[in-house]
Amino acid sequence: MTAVSTGKTLLRVLAGSTLEPPPIWLMRQAGRYLPEYRALRARTGGFLELCLSPALAAEVTLQPIRRYGLDGAILFSDILVVPYGLGQAVSFREGEGPILEALDHGGDLARLAMDGFAGRVAPIGETVRRVRAELPPSVTLIGFAGSPWTVSTYMIEGRSSREFGRIKAWLYRDPSALAALIDRLVEATVAYLELQIAAGVEAIQLFESWAGILPAPAFERWVVTPNAAIIAQLNARHPDIPVILFPRGAGANYQAVSRMAGLAGVGLDTTVPPTWARQTFAPSMALQGNLDPLVLATGGAALAEEVRRIRAALGSGPFVFNLGHGVVPETPPEHVAELVRLVRA
Amino acid sequence: MTAVSTGKTLLRVLAGSTLEPPPIWLMRQAGRYLPEYRALRARTGGFLELCLSPALAAEVTLQPIRRYGLDGAILFSDILVVPYGLGQAVSFREGEGPILEALDHGGDLARLAMDGFAGRVAPIGETVRRVRAELPPSVTLIGFAGSPWTVSTYMIEGRSSREFGRIKAWLYRDPSALAALIDRLVEATVAYLELQIAAGVEAIQLFESWAGILPAPAFERWVVTPNAAIIAQLNARHPDIPVILFPRGAGANYQAVSRMAGLAGVGLDTTVPPTWARQTFAPSMALQGNLDPLVLATGGAALAEEVRRIRAALGSGPFVFNLGHGVVPETPPEHVAELVRLVRA
Repeated sequence: MTAVSTGKTLLRVLAGSTLEPPPIWLMRQAGRYLPEYRALRARTGGFLELCLSPALAAEVTLQPIRRYGLDGAILFSDILVVPYGLGQAVSFREGEGPILEALDHGGDLARLAMDGFAGRVAPIGETVRRVRAELPPSVTLIGFAGSPWTVSTYMIEGRSSREFGRIKAWLYRDPSALAALIDRLVEATVAYLELQIAAGVEAIQLFESWAGILPAPAFERWVVTPNAAIIAQLNARHPDIPVILFPRGAGANYQAVSRMAGLAGVGLDTTVPPTWARQTFAPSMALQGNLDPLVLATGGAALAEEVRRIRAALGSGPFVFNLGHGVVPETPPEHVAELVRLVRA
Repeated sequence: MTAVSTGKTLLRVLAGSTLEPPPIWLMRQAGRYLPEYRALRARTGGFLELCLSPALAAEVTLQPIRRYGLDGAILFSDILVVPYGLGQAVSFREGEGPILEALDHGGDLARLAMDGFAGRVAPIGETVRRVRAELPPSVTLIGFAGSPWTVSTYMIEGRSSREFGRIKAWLYRDPSALAALIDRLVEATVAYLELQIAAGVEAIQLFESWAGILPAPAFERWVVTPNAAIIAQLNARHPDIPVILFPRGAGANYQAVSRMAGLAGVGLDTTVPPTWARQTFAPSMALQGNLDPLVLATGGAALAEEVRRIRAALGSGPFVFNLGHGVVPETPPEHVAELVRLVRA
């Protein structure tokens, strides 16, 4: 274990160092729980427009860094920027989440094209440049994308789903059409992440938010394989950029993730027992997580106890403190300040 | 492995036998995907009224047995009959799910009472007696209840939830109030299941539908401990009645379930890798599951392949074929017939 006070601690942990205290950042650390975010949001148009406005998206990215001095700043954007870049109609309705012009069958893939992709997602590169220019040197800038399986659930369901009946009909009835979509998304996602890297992100997180709805063989085929393809391409061309995969809800299928090559870190959702994760993954793997966002919202003695428990269980190896899912909007901002204090104590 | 053609195959597997073919029943085997259910439903009042009408609930329980000759008949009822029995207002709105007069704080527990519980849930006993009288002798009648943690989520949230912010505020801020509610539910659930046993059910399934939202220590405290208390009481007083626990979404916390005493069977959700489950549980444990309900809805070659895979992986020990979650309403009834044929082939 190394005591540190300077340098990019997040990058050092992702390179295999065990640091005490661990670096900390939080999924959805920018967002509705912050009054400065709500004030900015009240002055802007739709959510997608916000993601595509470099000055505003950069400001939102920086808000939690200014307030809390976190060790990582994650680009403020949305996983549905990739379908938007491919020409699919995407919008967000207040309180309803995303609405997409859903793909109905394999033939609809013709509607998606890499022509024009770079131009449509170019504002994200500008956001990254602006953030990087303003970020303190100790803070790591994290780029991200949704993983192909998760993004394709939205592209085929057209919205958030409970049963995932449409994409599973593709999966079980027409896997070659689903494979064609996933291949397109692997290509687009690599291009999108390379744009972020060229603009200055220093690490990548892949969000596989819907890893938890697949049987084991389908998990291998639709979660492990596409993410591995993205990681292999990024590692080959950008060996200095570490990649974290967050396969939310993978359960015992985290074992399959532990066999993937090229990962620098793995995000653990709230339900993963930390001791099981340490046994399942190689000792050099950086593990990231996994405080319950609802104990952060509640605060108090339970927050202190849960921080202590997670640090004790995961801190014996490379470890990045984070939540097991995103900050919930009801979280009092002072609880995040208390969390940072507890982790650095 | 024993070849069988007669007897209560489900009970034999729950007693530790490995049978080929395995017995089969399906979670939500009675319900909206069946035209005869929809026809009956169109003539009846609210959903809770249906659960409390012995003649109708018995008829609905028997519909899939008549159609498919399944090896288990599960009582048609709802996990919210227990809060109703305790005096909480419960209703169901079409397309919205359950609505309860939510508990706001520990003081609200005074609204819940065992006085009158037996009378309020008595119709369920009558349903069991009617079903038992009509069931072919080879079919096992399965009673059930929701597990205390899962039932308390509805009692505190007041409805289906995404974040479970209210019950987690109890959990993290006032665990003694939550413990008092859970204790009340353990007592009521044992009483309710003993009523079912007295009326003729031959096996019990405990549905812990929201096992997948808790960190590991909370899983021990709020999932393992209350279910273990119910199982210990049932085993002591009814040693001939096997109990199955279905901790949906438990992920790696299925390991904690594998250490529980007194269980005859464990339900595996769709995401659990069958080989991992066989390694995790004692060889004598009956494992039940875990076909994706969406491959049943899709049918075709994928259904045959998934049935083959699951049988090959789980059939080496005591095994009950089932889904990993309930039948979805869009399922064509002929796919269930095909599934039964495939499992018995």
